[in-house]
Amino acid sequence: MTTNARRTISGKAARSGKPSRRAPGRPSADGADRRAELLDAAISCFARDGIAATSLRAVARQAGVTPAMVHYYFGDKAQLQQALVAERVLPATQQIGARLAAVGDDAGAAIAAFVHAIDEVVARHPWLPALWVREVLCEGGALREVLFGQLLPGLPEAMARRFAAAQRLGRIGADLDPRLLVVSLVGLTLFPAASAPIWKRALVDGIDTGPPVDRARMLRHTLSLLAHGIGAQ
Amino acid sequence: MTTNARRTISGKAARSGKPSRRAPGRPSADGADRRAELLDAAISCFARDGIAATSLRAVARQAGVTPAMVHYYFGDKAQLQQALVAERVLPATQQIGARLAAVGDDAGAAIAAFVHAIDEVVARHPWLPALWVREVLCEGGALREVLFGQLLPGLPEAMARRFAAAQRLGRIGADLDPRLLVVSLVGLTLFPAASAPIWKRALVDGIDTGPPVDRARMLRHTLSLLAHGIGAQ
Repeated sequence: MTTNARRTISGKAARSGKPSRRAPGRPSADGADRRAELLDAAISCFARDGIAATSLRAVARQAGVTPAMVHYYFGDKAQLQQALVAERVLPATQQIGARLAAVGDDAGAAIAAFVHAIDEVVARHPWLPALWVREVLCEGGALREVLFGQLLPGLPEAMARRFAAAQRLGRIGADLDPRLLVVSLVGLTLFPAASAPIWKRALVDGIDTGPPVDRARMLRHTLSLLAHGIGAQ
Repeated sequence: MTTNARRTISGKAARSGKPSRRAPGRPSADGADRRAELLDAAISCFARDGIAATSLRAVARQAGVTPAMVHYYFGDKAQLQQALVAERVLPATQQIGARLAAVGDDAGAAIAAFVHAIDEVVARHPWLPALWVREVLCEGGALREVLFGQLLPGLPEAMARRFAAAQRLGRIGADLDPRLLVVSLVGLTLFPAASAPIWKRALVDGIDTGPPVDRARMLRHTLSLLAHGIGAQ
């Protein structure tokens, strides 16, 4: 650690607490790059061990820098968590909101937009599903309250209301519950992404009932199930 | 703690390390009852804090007994975890396996049986979904390997093979993936149970788009979605 820090923070910069713009012996990384690297390292730790169990020291170890450098960029753990939410999680969830806002009132279009949005968000932010399981789904997760207040304010409710309106017009099945349909959508998109390490091992590596499961195959399966159920069309 | 232990383990029984059959000042609890109570306490701790973060001391505190009593009944943490699996989790998952074995080869019947089995198992073992999230879904969960080897040996694979056979006969949609259909089933049953504290707060307490969500309503929604998708029939 100390060696890495010496390599990265040289001479005067180290004394003044400011990272150097050019780190001898390592690829050049300015402050923004370094900050991004440290956030990546924090996300790895958070998704693997949980936010509560991750110390700034562990983030530093993951990133191969000194704890002082993590402290310099983020202050304390609470501020690191705020940075994670503001700079990484929020952009991901806003992407979902933007896709849903772009489609009109049609329930079917909203459902397809949601499925595509999760597919894209997971492809772009592959750490998101594991973090969601540990910090939102788990009892006591550090991001559950953040989800309600900041990440998806009003989005699930708006979707449920849209589905309820579609149902009153006879456009979606009478036996469906508009609120549970929002839950079903998450269970058919984010849950499969989060459980992929489990089902890939049991069901894809373990048996041979079809070609590899890639994004296109997952999308086709999910959209077909939502449109028609299991029935042959 | 000590007071509780004195109340429960009296005189000679405490010295010999054996719990008394009659605990003065408390409802009578023989060894089997006490063991069941301690397992309940362990499950509460495991589901809330995770198996790794739960000490025998924490289980004792939860149960209101001494750590020595937990040790007496279960030995160490590894043995407590084994008891949890053998005496609580395994009976729950065997119930699912038994329901699936009872239906024939029909894919639709197997799907309905699975949905009903999860509904019943969750109603009977309400701690199961949270434990599943923390110890199977979470990376590094203590029960993930147990799931593959002991809890559901071959069950997901058998379901996927059954769905693949049904698809070859044109009985389920051509765009579905038989393996992903197993994942979808879990995402539409166990996932909604595990995330209920979240969606009930946002979608049921938060807005008014229908009557309370009870087991019957959840079953109707899930079976309808699987049978027909979102479409009005």
